[in-house]
Amino acid sequence: MDNYRNNQNMSLGIVGFGAFGQLAAHHLGQHFETTAYDPSPGLATVAKQLGVPLTSLHAVSQTDVILIAAPVSSFEQVVGEIAVACKPGALIVDVASVKVVPSEIMRRLLPPHVDIIATHPLFGPQSAAKGIEGLKIAVCPIQGKQHARLAAFLRKALGLTVIMTTPEDHDQEAAVVQGLTHLIAKVLLKMGPLPTRMTTKSFDLLSNAISMVQHDAPEVFEAIEKANPYAETVRRRFFDLAACLSVELDSASRTPPHNETGH
Amino acid sequence: MDNYRNNQNMSLGIVGFGAFGQLAAHHLGQHFETTAYDPSPGLATVAKQLGVPLTSLHAVSQTDVILIAAPVSSFEQVVGEIAVACKPGALIVDVASVKVVPSEIMRRLLPPHVDIIATHPLFGPQSAAKGIEGLKIAVCPIQGKQHARLAAFLRKALGLTVIMTTPEDHDQEAAVVQGLTHLIAKVLLKMGPLPTRMTTKSFDLLSNAISMVQHDAPEVFEAIEKANPYAETVRRRFFDLAACLSVELDSASRTPPHNETGH
Repeated sequence: MDNYRNNQNMSLGIVGFGAFGQLAAHHLGQHFETTAYDPSPGLATVAKQLGVPLTSLHAVSQTDVILIAAPVSSFEQVVGEIAVACKPGALIVDVASVKVVPSEIMRRLLPPHVDIIATHPLFGPQSAAKGIEGLKIAVCPIQGKQHARLAAFLRKALGLTVIMTTPEDHDQEAAVVQGLTHLIAKVLLKMGPLPTRMTTKSFDLLSNAISMVQHDAPEVFEAIEKANPYAETVRRRFFDLAACLSVELDSASRTPPHNETGH
Repeated sequence: MDNYRNNQNMSLGIVGFGAFGQLAAHHLGQHFETTAYDPSPGLATVAKQLGVPLTSLHAVSQTDVILIAAPVSSFEQVVGEIAVACKPGALIVDVASVKVVPSEIMRRLLPPHVDIIATHPLFGPQSAAKGIEGLKIAVCPIQGKQHARLAAFLRKALGLTVIMTTPEDHDQEAAVVQGLTHLIAKVLLKMGPLPTRMTTKSFDLLSNAISMVQHDAPEVFEAIEKANPYAETVRRRFFDLAACLSVELDSASRTPPHNETGH
């Protein structure tokens, strides 16, 4: 496995053909002989458009590079099935939004004769609409030595900005980055349609930020808020500070009453 | 007063030479013979750079167009002093971030022989750093007939997008637009330095939104949260929804314990 670039002889198996699996197929199809697995119905048309044959989880698990783009909820089961079918020397990569839990599952279930790299592409179909060049991806080496080669491929073939990190460091930072973005988006979306007429530039930026995440699958929010071990602390901090500010503003607006009885 | 454009014979008096008064001088200086008043010390250098003589409030109040860029806290006092000095036919324009309260003060204190237009430029020194063309300004006619002429000047001479509205409609929409932007910014800034490395595009937008308002004068936040009659309702709604989401997430993360004693 000398190079992942334009090597049509290397096989790539995508596990989970949702929005992100399809985005991956779109960008990786030219570099690998790609197949995909997804138990959901109704994916035949998009798979055909992308030129990616849908096949069984067992078949996909026997490729050279296995890309796990399954939701966190079914992650453990999927890894368990890959573990019994994958071949020695295979590279197994996940793309979940959190890294501590998936890394632990992969390390625990996968055999020692495969390489494991946990990644988090810091983008999705929305932010990658105009291409992925310059976008960021976090890469955590877990097992084996292929991480330098993968990082070079991500940089050179895909033009991504690679951030080498650990699952713990990733989740700590993601708890703020993604945790807060999704939290604020959830609250603002509950407030109803946001104004579009008398808007300031800063509000426009805020609205854009929200519109970029509002169509994310519910599993993404679940993963970010619940499967990240640091998310609850960040969330509590945000809500506590918001509550303090609320009290502060309310007490300040209650001006002392005039002393009407005077003397 | 046929035209405000390139009419060096018309005089403009800026009351309040802070960040916004200076921005106004920069963009209006070529169209009017401009002077300014501000009681704060240390403004001589910037006034000289902008070619705007600093003078008394009385002198500034005798110009053809009086632009009030004073903080909301001293607004009433300033208008009272302008009221006794301004000349018949003068146009008096304010630029406060809220419109109901300043409009009411101007309507109550200024004489019937002047025109009054309440405006809110939906930008500041930060968002106008690369020029003001295409930026938005809300314009509320209060007294007299000069509003159409002013709107034409703002559109044609300054390239602004003019939104004709009423003080009530403005404040309702601004309570959401500015109220929420500043509220979220306040809470996030209290959380400490935000991550810059493993960021998503949506988080970058959020960070940019915050950085645009974080250097606003404290008076701006005061005005937005306290002088806008609709701000408290919007704020309460945001804090209530945040509290609901907090409870929702906490209860969902508390999974039911295993029944260890059996049946």
